[in-house]
Amino acid sequence: MIVLAFPELESIGGKVAEGLGSQFHLIQKKIFPDGESYVRIGTDVKDEDIVLVQTTYPEQDKRLLELFYAIDTIRSHGARSVEVVLTYLAYARQDREFLPGEAVSVRTVLRLLGAVGVNTLYAVDVHKPESLEYFPGQAKNIIPSRVFSRKLEDLNLRNPIVVSPDLGASHRAKALASELGCECFIIRKHRDRITGQIRHELPEDIDVKGKEAVVVDDIISTGGTVANIASFLRKCGASRVFVAASHGLFVDEALRKLRNAGVDRVLTLNTLATKVNDSLIEYVDVSPELVRVLRNMVSGTL
Amino acid sequence: MIVLAFPELESIGGKVAEGLGSQFHLIQKKIFPDGESYVRIGTDVKDEDIVLVQTTYPEQDKRLLELFYAIDTIRSHGARSVEVVLTYLAYARQDREFLPGEAVSVRTVLRLLGAVGVNTLYAVDVHKPESLEYFPGQAKNIIPSRVFSRKLEDLNLRNPIVVSPDLGASHRAKALASELGCECFIIRKHRDRITGQIRHELPEDIDVKGKEAVVVDDIISTGGTVANIASFLRKCGASRVFVAASHGLFVDEALRKLRNAGVDRVLTLNTLATKVNDSLIEYVDVSPELVRVLRNMVSGTL
Repeated sequence: MIVLAFPELESIGGKVAEGLGSQFHLIQKKIFPDGESYVRIGTDVKDEDIVLVQTTYPEQDKRLLELFYAIDTIRSHGARSVEVVLTYLAYARQDREFLPGEAVSVRTVLRLLGAVGVNTLYAVDVHKPESLEYFPGQAKNIIPSRVFSRKLEDLNLRNPIVVSPDLGASHRAKALASELGCECFIIRKHRDRITGQIRHELPEDIDVKGKEAVVVDDIISTGGTVANIASFLRKCGASRVFVAASHGLFVDEALRKLRNAGVDRVLTLNTLATKVNDSLIEYVDVSPELVRVLRNMVSGTL
Repeated sequence: MIVLAFPELESIGGKVAEGLGSQFHLIQKKIFPDGESYVRIGTDVKDEDIVLVQTTYPEQDKRLLELFYAIDTIRSHGARSVEVVLTYLAYARQDREFLPGEAVSVRTVLRLLGAVGVNTLYAVDVHKPESLEYFPGQAKNIIPSRVFSRKLEDLNLRNPIVVSPDLGASHRAKALASELGCECFIIRKHRDRITGQIRHELPEDIDVKGKEAVVVDDIISTGGTVANIASFLRKCGASRVFVAASHGLFVDEALRKLRNAGVDRVLTLNTLATKVNDSLIEYVDVSPELVRVLRNMVSGTL
C-alpha cells in the first residue's frame, strides 16, 4: 500500500501513512501561466493499492480537477486499487433538486469520481451522508465525534449539552453526545409565513440555563445559521456556547457574526487547505480518526 | 432540437440556434459565497436532442465542472441526446506524458465528458486533433480556416504566404493556405545543444521578401513562440506579419511581445469568455463555421 497526498494535505497524508505503516509520496503540482493545473505522480504505482488523500477547499473546482487527473494517472499506470480519502467533499450541500432543473452537483462529482476509477471513497462528515449513495462504489462517511469529544474533554466542561441546529444534522449531535455521555436536543425552527423571519424554540423538556451548549454542525460558511442559534442559546441562559463544526470555511464576516452572537470557542477540523488565525478558533486534528477508519478497512472490519 | 448555452457564450449560442432553426435557452448560473457554482437548466429537455454550447476559458476548472453539472442534469431529465460544442477545449496541450507519471489531462477531461453522458463532441481547433480519440463517443475538430480566410480576404493582401510555427501545427496552415489559394511552409527550428537557444530557418525554396506572412497557430498564451517567429520573418524581409490564432488567451505580456516582434495584426476567434480591447487584435466570429458543421451533422453528412 502507498499513501499519496497533494501538497495541501501533506501533514495529514504523512500521518495517515505513518498510522498505516505505508510508504508516503507527495503528488507534484504546479499552475501554468494560463491557469491550467499540472499534476504528476512521481512514484511507481503499478500493482499497488493506493490511498490518495486530498481536500476540495478552497478552490473547489481546481481541487476536483486535480483529483480527477491524479486518479486517472494512477489508474493508467496500473494501480491495483484506488481508495480516496476526502477530508472535505465540496458541493455536498447541492444534494437535491430544490427547483426543477437544478444541478444535483454532489451527484455529478461522485459519479465522476467513480468513472475515473475510485474503488472506495472516504469522506469526512458529508453534509447529508446519504448523498454518498450516488457514488457507484463503496463509500464511507467519517464522523469526527471522537476527535471532537477528546478536545471537549480537555476543556473540562462541567455541564455540557449538545445542540443540533436542525433535524437533518442530528446524527452528528447524537454521535458527539454519546461520546461525551451527555444530553442532546434538536432546535425547532419556525418560519413566519408573512415576515419570513425564523424563530427558534427549545424542546419543552429542555433547559439550557447554566449549561455549556455545544452546537454541532458540518460546515460553517458565512456563519449565519450557527450565529443565530448561539444568540438564541445565550438568551435561553446557556453559560457558554461552543461550536464543533467539522469544516470551517469562515466566509466573509463569519467570525464577526459568531463572536457577536456570544460564541466562546469554535472547534473545527484541519480538513481544509486553509487555516484561519483567530483566537476564537481551535483546530482539531482529524488524522487519528482517518487512521482508525482506514486501519479497520485494511483489517476488513469496515 | 434545443440549443442551450451558458451565459459566457450567449451570443454564439443564439447564432447557432438561429442557424439551426432551433429553440434557444440560456443556462442559469450563480456562485455561492463559498465559491461553489450553481447551475440550472430552466427548460424541459425530456426526449429532446440537446446541443450545448460553452467555452472553457478563463477559469478552466470552474467552466469544466459547470459543464459536467449541466450535462448530468440534462441526462437526468431524460434528454434523447447531448451534443456538446466547445469553442475552446482547456487542457488540450497536456496531451501526453512528457515525464513519467505526468497527468495526460486532456485524456481525463475527454473521458469525463463521455462518462457524464455526451454523445458527440465538437471542439474548435484542438491543439492536437488526434487527442480527441480519448473521447469515448464521436468527436470532431472544427478547423476555422474558412472564417479566417474571409477576414484575410477583406484585408486585400497582395502577396500572402502562410507560415506554420512547427510540423505538429501544419494541418492548420495547410487548410488556411488552401482557402486563400497561396503558398504555405513550415518553419524549421534548431535548438543549440549547448546554449539551449532556438534558431529558426526558412525552407531552402522559400522567400518571404516583400510578402505578407500569415502565421497560423491554435493558441496564443504568453505569445513567446509566435513573437519569435514574427521577428524572424521580419528579419527575412516579410513586408507585414499577420497572426491567425484561434484562441487568444494573451496571458501576461503577450501583446507587448507581439507588438515588439513586428506583428501588424492578430486575428483571433471569439472562442473565449474574455475579449481583450487592443488595436492589435481583430476578433473573428466563429459562429458561421459552427452552424455549417452542425447543419451537416443534422443532415447526416458529417
